Amino acid sequence: MSQETDPLTWARDYCPILRSFQAEYGDDEPLAGHTVAVATHLEAKSGILIETLHEAGADVLFAPSEPQSTHGDVVDALDAIDGVTAFAWEGMSDEEFDAQQHELLENEPDFILDDGCELISKAHADHSDVAVDVIGGGEQTTAGITRVEAMEEEGVLQFPVYTVNDTPMKHFFDNVHGTGESALTNIAITSNTIISGKDVVVAGYGYCGRGIARKARGMGAQTIVTEVDPRKALEAHMDGHRVMSMTEAAAVGDLFITTTGNRDVIRKEHFEAMTNGVQLANAGHFDVEIDVDALESLASDTSTPKEGVTRYHMPDGRDINLLADGRLVNLTGPYSQGHPAEVIDTTHSMMFVAAYDLIVENRDLTPGAYAIPDRLDREVAERKLETLDVTIDEMIESQREYATDWRHEGSSF
Amino acid sequence: MSQETDPLTWARDYCPILRSFQAEYGDDEPLAGHTVAVATHLEAKSGILIETLHEAGADVLFAPSEPQSTHGDVVDALDAIDGVTAFAWEGMSDEEFDAQQHELLENEPDFILDDGCELISKAHADHSDVAVDVIGGGEQTTAGITRVEAMEEEGVLQFPVYTVNDTPMKHFFDNVHGTGESALTNIAITSNTIISGKDVVVAGYGYCGRGIARKARGMGAQTIVTEVDPRKALEAHMDGHRVMSMTEAAAVGDLFITTTGNRDVIRKEHFEAMTNGVQLANAGHFDVEIDVDALESLASDTSTPKEGVTRYHMPDGRDINLLADGRLVNLTGPYSQGHPAEVIDTTHSMMFVAAYDLIVENRDLTPGAYAIPDRLDREVAERKLETLDVTIDEMIESQREYATDWRHEGSSF
Amino acid sequence: MSQETDPLTWARDYCPILRSFQAEYGDDEPLAGHTVAVATHLEAKSGILIETLHEAGADVLFAPSEPQSTHGDVVDALDAIDGVTAFAWEGMSDEEFDAQQHELLENEPDFILDDGCELISKAHADHSDVAVDVIGGGEQTTAGITRVEAMEEEGVLQFPVYTVNDTPMKHFFDNVHGTGESALTNIAITSNTIISGKDVVVAGYGYCGRGIARKARGMGAQTIVTEVDPRKALEAHMDGHRVMSMTEAAAVGDLFITTTGNRDVIRKEHFEAMTNGVQLANAGHFDVEIDVDALESLASDTSTPKEGVTRYHMPDGRDINLLADGRLVNLTGPYSQGHPAEVIDTTHSMMFVAAYDLIVENRDLTPGAYAIPDRLDREVAERKLETLDVTIDEMIESQREYATDWRHEGSSF
Amino acid sequence: MSQETDPLTWARDYCPILRSFQAEYGDDEPLAGHTVAVATHLEAKSGILIETLHEAGADVLFAPSEPQSTHGDVVDALDAIDGVTAFAWEGMSDEEFDAQQHELLENEPDFILDDGCELISKAHADHSDVAVDVIGGGEQTTAGITRVEAMEEEGVLQFPVYTVNDTPMKHFFDNVHGTGESALTNIAITSNTIISGKDVVVAGYGYCGRGIARKARGMGAQTIVTEVDPRKALEAHMDGHRVMSMTEAAAVGDLFITTTGNRDVIRKEHFEAMTNGVQLANAGHFDVEIDVDALESLASDTSTPKEGVTRYHMPDGRDINLLADGRLVNLTGPYSQGHPAEVIDTTHSMMFVAAYDLIVENRDLTPGAYAIPDRLDREVAERKLETLDVTIDEMIESQREYATDWRHEGSSF
Repeated sequence: MSQETDPLTWARDYCPILRSFQAEYGDDEPLAGHTVAVATHLEAKSGILIETLHEAGADVLFAPSEPQSTHGDVVDALDAIDGVTAFAWEGMSDEEFDAQQHELLENEPDFILDDGCELISKAHADHSDVAVDVIGGGEQTTAGITRVEAMEEEGVLQFPVYTVNDTPMKHFFDNVHGTGESALTNIAITSNTIISGKDVVVAGYGYCGRGIARKARGMGAQTIVTEVDPRKALEAHMDGHRVMSMTEAAAVGDLFITTTGNRDVIRKEHFEAMTNGVQLANAGHFDVEIDVDALESLASDTSTPKEGVTRYHMPDGRDINLLADGRLVNLTGPYSQGHPAEVIDTTHSMMFVAAYDLIVENRDLTPGAYAIPDRLDREVAERKLETLDVTIDEMIESQREYATDWRHEGSSF
Repeated sequence: MSQETDPLTWARDYCPILRSFQAEYGDDEPLAGHTVAVATHLEAKSGILIETLHEAGADVLFAPSEPQSTHGDVVDALDAIDGVTAFAWEGMSDEEFDAQQHELLENEPDFILDDGCELISKAHADHSDVAVDVIGGGEQTTAGITRVEAMEEEGVLQFPVYTVNDTPMKHFFDNVHGTGESALTNIAITSNTIISGKDVVVAGYGYCGRGIARKARGMGAQTIVTEVDPRKALEAHMDGHRVMSMTEAAAVGDLFITTTGNRDVIRKEHFEAMTNGVQLANAGHFDVEIDVDALESLASDTSTPKEGVTRYHMPDGRDINLLADGRLVNLTGPYSQGHPAEVIDTTHSMMFVAAYDLIVENRDLTPGAYAIPDRLDREVAERKLETLDVTIDEMIESQREYATDWRHEGSSF
Repeated sequence: MSQETDPLTWARDYCPILRSFQAEYGDDEPLAGHTVAVATHLEAKSGILIETLHEAGADVLFAPSEPQSTHGDVVDALDAIDGVTAFAWEGMSDEEFDAQQHELLENEPDFILDDGCELISKAHADHSDVAVDVIGGGEQTTAGITRVEAMEEEGVLQFPVYTVNDTPMKHFFDNVHGTGESALTNIAITSNTIISGKDVVVAGYGYCGRGIARKARGMGAQTIVTEVDPRKALEAHMDGHRVMSMTEAAAVGDLFITTTGNRDVIRKEHFEAMTNGVQLANAGHFDVEIDVDALESLASDTSTPKEGVTRYHMPDGRDINLLADGRLVNLTGPYSQGHPAEVIDTTHSMMFVAAYDLIVENRDLTPGAYAIPDRLDREVAERKLETLDVTIDEMIESQREYATDWRHEGSSF
Repeated sequence: MSQETDPLTWARDYCPILRSFQAEYGDDEPLAGHTVAVATHLEAKSGILIETLHEAGADVLFAPSEPQSTHGDVVDALDAIDGVTAFAWEGMSDEEFDAQQHELLENEPDFILDDGCELISKAHADHSDVAVDVIGGGEQTTAGITRVEAMEEEGVLQFPVYTVNDTPMKHFFDNVHGTGESALTNIAITSNTIISGKDVVVAGYGYCGRGIARKARGMGAQTIVTEVDPRKALEAHMDGHRVMSMTEAAAVGDLFITTTGNRDVIRKEHFEAMTNGVQLANAGHFDVEIDVDALESLASDTSTPKEGVTRYHMPDGRDINLLADGRLVNLTGPYSQGHPAEVIDTTHSMMFVAAYDLIVENRDLTPGAYAIPDRLDREVAERKLETLDVTIDEMIESQREYATDWRHEGSSF
C-alpha cells in the first residue's frame, strides 16, 4: 500500500506560516478579483506561495525567475489548479523564458511578486499599459531591490514595491540559521569530510557569517573570522573566534567560507599563502567573493576529484579545492535541496503579507520602493510562534507606562 | 620580598585602551589648559579614566557619583597626583557628598564627565556661571541620559553632551559579555550552587538577556527565555532556548534572571506558581524588575539562609530565594567586584574620546544631547583590537567600488 | 585544461594516517612475502587501505564484504596495480559474491582483514587448509566481532584476530564525531529542513548519542535525551539536555534519532503518542531500533513525500516520517557519501597496524579474539596528531615519578 | 519580620539526595545501635551527612579532618542534636585537633567515614582495640585512598573500606561540572576580569580539564589544551580546542589553568616564555602543578595587586599573576564558598551508602580497600534523578534479550 504523492506535500508540511494564511483567508478570499503574477524559482517550496495566494482568492499567473531551476512536476501540479496559470515548463530555453514572461504580462496581472526584478522591469519597459494599472509589487532579492531602487531614482517606477530584506526576521531566520546550517551541511556532504577539528575560516561576521561561525564552533571546529569592520571583528573575538587578516588566515585554514557580500575576498595573494589541500566555499551572494579567475590563472591544471569539487593544481605542487565553482554552496552544491523549507516559508510569508497589505490595507501608497513595514515582519513572527505553539508574554499596564516614562524615581540598582 | 602595591595597578593592567591613550597623548597633552570634572563610582577602575585625562594634559577634579561606593585608598592615590583634586573620601554622608559636588563646581571645570547626571544637573541648577563656560560633557548611564535629554527638551541645557549608550560596542562588550558573565558568576558564588542542569529562566532577550542565556547554555543549563516581542522570542527559540510565558516558566524554572529593563516582570501571579526553593536574581537595571513588594506581602516570614540571599517563606510552605535584594546581582552581590575591568575600560574609553572630541575636534557643537558618533565607537574598537594584537583586513579598491555599486552584471549565485 | 582524476585521489587526501604508513614503509616493505586478504565495502576510502598494505610490501587480494556497495572504477584502479588482485566487480550477484570470496581464499592469503567476518568464517568452514596457515586477522564491525568471539568460544578459531572496537579512538573519533556529524548532516539534507529550534530527541547517551546531542545543541536545537541507565541520564541532564522517558518525549519531539544499539527503542506506544509530522531516523546500528513493523501495522497507508522519506499515514490523520527506512541514516540516506573520510582513515589505520603487529611484531599470539592493544590505538592517535602538525607534551622525570608515587607529603590543596 | 536561620538550612536545601535517605530511613533507623565517626571539613554541607547518619539511627561522633576549616555555628548546631557529639570547635590548634581525634576514637565508633585517612590511621596506630571492632569505613579523597591502599598492602588494615573515587558519578558530577564551573567562577571573581575572548590554556584533558575547557569555550573563550596523552590530545582537538605543547601555549595564553593531578606542569621554561600580565590558576589537586618555587626564584620581587593574587615581577619587566597561591582556586580562592552544594550532596551520598551497605547489607567483607560498587554509584544516580523528577526508560523484555544476544540475524544497517 503506497499512495500517490502530490509534489507539493513535503514543502507544504514545512510551510506552516503560509498554511496559517490559507486557513485564515480560505473562506473570505480577500484577494478575490485580483490577478497576482509570481516570478520565482519554480520548485515545490515556491508552489506553496502560489497556492496560498490562490487560496486567498487571487488568480495567479506564474513564470520562472530564471529558466534552469524549474521542476516540471511542480509546474504541472500548480497549473492543474483552476485559477492558476503556468507560463513555464522544465527545460525552457532563455528565449522561451523571455517570451513566457511577456505572455504572462499580457494577461494583465494587477500585482507582481518578483525574484530578481526581471518581471517588474519587463512590465515597465514593454507593458506600460499593464504597469500603470498594477496596484503594487514585492521583491525579495538584494539584487532585485537594487534594480527597483534604481527605477525609483530614475523616476520611472509606476507602483509601490515592498522590498523584503534587512528585517530582523530575515536576518536571524534566513541568514543566521538558514544559510548558517545549509552552508555547513552542504559543505560536509559535498566534501564527505568532517567539520570538527578543522580550522574553519569564515570571511565576514555579518548575519550569515556569524551563523556559520557559531554553528561550526558548535560542531567542534576551531573557527577563525576575518573582517574589515573593527567592531564586528571585536565581537567575533569576544564570541570566541580567532580573528586575523585573511593573509594570516590563509596560512592556517583548512576550510574557507566567504559570506561578505563583496568581491575578491579570497584572491591571488591568499591563494599563494594557502597550504596544500584546502577547501574553499562561498556562502555570501554572488560567485565573485572568491576570485576564481585569479585561481584559474595561477593553476597549471585543474581536475574534478569529486562531484562538486574543482581542484586547482598549483605549479608548486599545492592543490586548492573549490566547492560548487565558488557559487553559493548551500544552493548550488551537487546535493543541495535549496534553502531549508522553513526558511522559504518565512520569506514567502513576507511576500504574501506584502501583497495582502498593498491590495487590501494600503491602497494609497505612492509609487516607490518601501522597506517592508515592521508590523508585517512582526506579524510573520507572531504567526510562526503560533504554529510552534509558543506563548509569549504581553506587557501589562504598569510596564507600558514604565517603557515610555524613563524618569524612574526612587528605584536603585 | 614583597613591594607596596599602588591600588590602581590591577585595574590599570586590564584597561589597555585607556593606557593606549596615555601612551599616545602623554607627550602632547592635547587637553592641557582644560579642567575636566569627573563624577563616578570611585573605585580603582574609575581611577584609570581620571589618570588618563590627566596624562592627556587636563587638570582633573573628581567627586563620587553617589556616596557609598568610594574606596579611600583609590581617592588618596589619585589625590596625590599633581593636577588631580579629590572632592571625596570614604564614608561620606549624603550631605557631604552634595556639598563636595558643589565645591567641585566652584572650581570651574570646563568639561564634565558624569555618571547619573547629578553633577551636570547641579551645574545647571546652581552654578549657571560655570555651566555657561563648559565646553561639553559626557554621560554614561541610561538614567543619566534621560535626565540630559529632559534638560534639552526643556531648553535649559547649556552645552553639548555625548551620551555613551546604545552603540555596538556597548551592546556586545558591556551587555552581552560584561553583564552576561558577571551575572552568572555572581549568582553561582552567592548561591554556591551549580548552573549546569538547572532550568534557568532568562526574562528578556535583549543584549543582556541573550548574553546570559547563551553563556548559561554554554555552561550546561537548560535555558528558558520569556519575551514580549515576537521576533526576539522567535530568535531565542531558533538559538536553542525554550520560549514560554513567564506564567508557564514560573512553574518549571529553578533560577530566574530578569534583564528586561522594565518593571514587574516577575510578580504576584508568578510567585504563586513557583516551586519550592527557586532562586531569583535581577541583572536588568533597577530593582523593580522583580516585584519585591508583592513578594514581601505574600510571605508569612523571611530569613537569611546565606549572605546575599533573602528567603521569603510562603504560607503554603514554599520558599522563594531572592538574591541581592533584587538589585543588580552582578554589581551588588556580596562577593561582587563590580563590572569586569575590561568592560569598564571600554566604557571609560568612550568617555575619554567624548571629552577629547568635544574639546579638541568639535568645538562648534551646539548645546544638546548627542549619541556618541559611530566613528568614536569604531575608534575604541580599533584600539582594543590593537591592544589584543589582532590585525583585520582593509577593503581593497575593487571592494570599495563593489560595496557602493550594486549593479553587478554577469555574476551569478 | 582539466586532467583525468584517479578515483582514489580525494579519499587519499583525507587519509593522512594511512599515507604516513605508506611513507614510512614504502621503502622497507615489511609486509613483503605476505598475502593479505581484504574484504570490505569497495569504495574509494577502502582503496587507500588496500593501497597502503601494498605499499608496505604485501600482495593484496580483495573482495567485497557485501555485493551492493562496490564502485567499479575503484575496483579497476586497484586491480591495475601490480600485486593487487580484485575478486569483485560492480553489480555482482549474491552468488558471484560468494564464489569470488571462495576464489580469493583459494589464492591462499596468510592474513585476513574482514568487515563482518564473512571471509574469516568461509576460511574456517571451507578452506581449513588455508586457515591453518593464516598468521592472523582483523575485524572492524561489532557484528563481525561477535562472530569471531563465537568461533573462539566454540574452539574452532585457527588464528589470532584483533578486534577493532571499543577503543578510545573509536569512541570519540568514529562515534562522537563521525556518526555525530554525519547523522545530522544527512538528516538535514534528506529532509531539507532546519535543525535549530527543533525539539530533537536522541535515544541513548552512549558515544554516538552524546555526539549527536551535543552537535545538535551546538547548532541550536532543543535537545531531549532518553536513556535506560540512570548515570548516563544524569550526565545528559548535567550536559544541558532535557531527559525524559520516550513516552514523554514522543509527545513533544519533532525529530527522533535512535543510537542505542538495541531494538524497539521507538515502538507502538510511542508512535501512538507522537504529533503530526514528526521525523524518525536511526543512527545506531541495525534497522531494528525503530520498530518499523509496528509502524507499518499501525498505518492505514504509506507514501514517499520526498526521496529517502517514507510517510506512514495513521488512521487518525497523523503522519509519521521515517528517514532511510530506519536503516543507518548517515550511511544509507539518499545523499549519503558514507562515513567522512577522516573517520575511515582512523579505522583503517587500526586495521593496518593490526596486520603489521601480528605479522611483524607479535607472531607468537595464540588463536583467539584480542581487543586491539592500547599501544596500537595510541600509535594511531600519535600519527594523526603528527599529520595535524600538533605537538603535545612529554612527561618529564619528576612527573613520571609523581605519577607512580602517590604518597605526596608536604603538599596541600 | 525575619526568623532565625539554622546554619544548615541552605546546604540542606541543595542536598536532596541525602534528604531522600533521611525520608526513607527516618522511621526504620537501620543504623540504630551503631556509632559512626565522621572526620571531614566542618562546614554546613558536611553537616547534612552527619544529620543523615543520625536520622538513619546512628549515633554520630564528628571531628574535623583538618583544623582550619571548621565553622563554629555548624558545630554548635550539630552538637545540639541528641545522639550527635562534637569533637571540634572553631579555631582549634593542631594539638587540639590531634587530641580531639584521639578522644573521639576512645568513644569506640564502629564505623569511620574519613576525609584524608587521618582518623582511620590513628585508629590503627593508637586504638587497635577500637579498630578491631570497627565494621568498616569510607574514604573520599584520592590522597586518603592512597593511604588506605598502603595500609592494605602492608597487611595492617583491620576492616573493609569503601573508596569513593573514580566512579562515573564522581567523574562527571564532581569533576566535569563541579570543578569545571567553580574553577571558572572563582577565577572570574578573584581576577574581576572577563573569560570570553581570552586565550585560556587548560593543562590536562581529564575530567576536570574537559569540564573547564568546555565551559570556558561555552562562555566565549578561545581555548587551548595541553596534554601528554596523544588520544586525549586528539579528543581535545576534535572537540574544538587548539592543542599544543605547554611551551607553545606559554607564549600565547592569557589565563592558564592546571588540572593534571601531576607536578611541575607549568615550570621555569614556561614562565620564561609567558607574556606580560598572564594569570595562573590551579584546579588540579595539590599546589605542585604550578612550580611556585621556580616562579619565586625567577622573580625579582612580588606584590599583591588584588586579594587572592600574587604578582611575580620578572627582572625583564614582565609580571606573572598567580591566583590563590597555586592552591585549588575553586576551594581556596578569597571568595570561594567551597564546592557547590549539589556536588557535595553527591559525594556525601556515596559516603552514606558506603556506611549503609557495609553495616546493613555486606557484613562479611574482609578487610581491604574496595572501590565503591557500581550498584551503589548507580543508586545515587537514581535517587538524584528522582529528586529532579526525571523519569527514564526501563528496558523491555525484547531489549534485555537483544542486549545479551548479539547474533542478530536478518537485520541490516
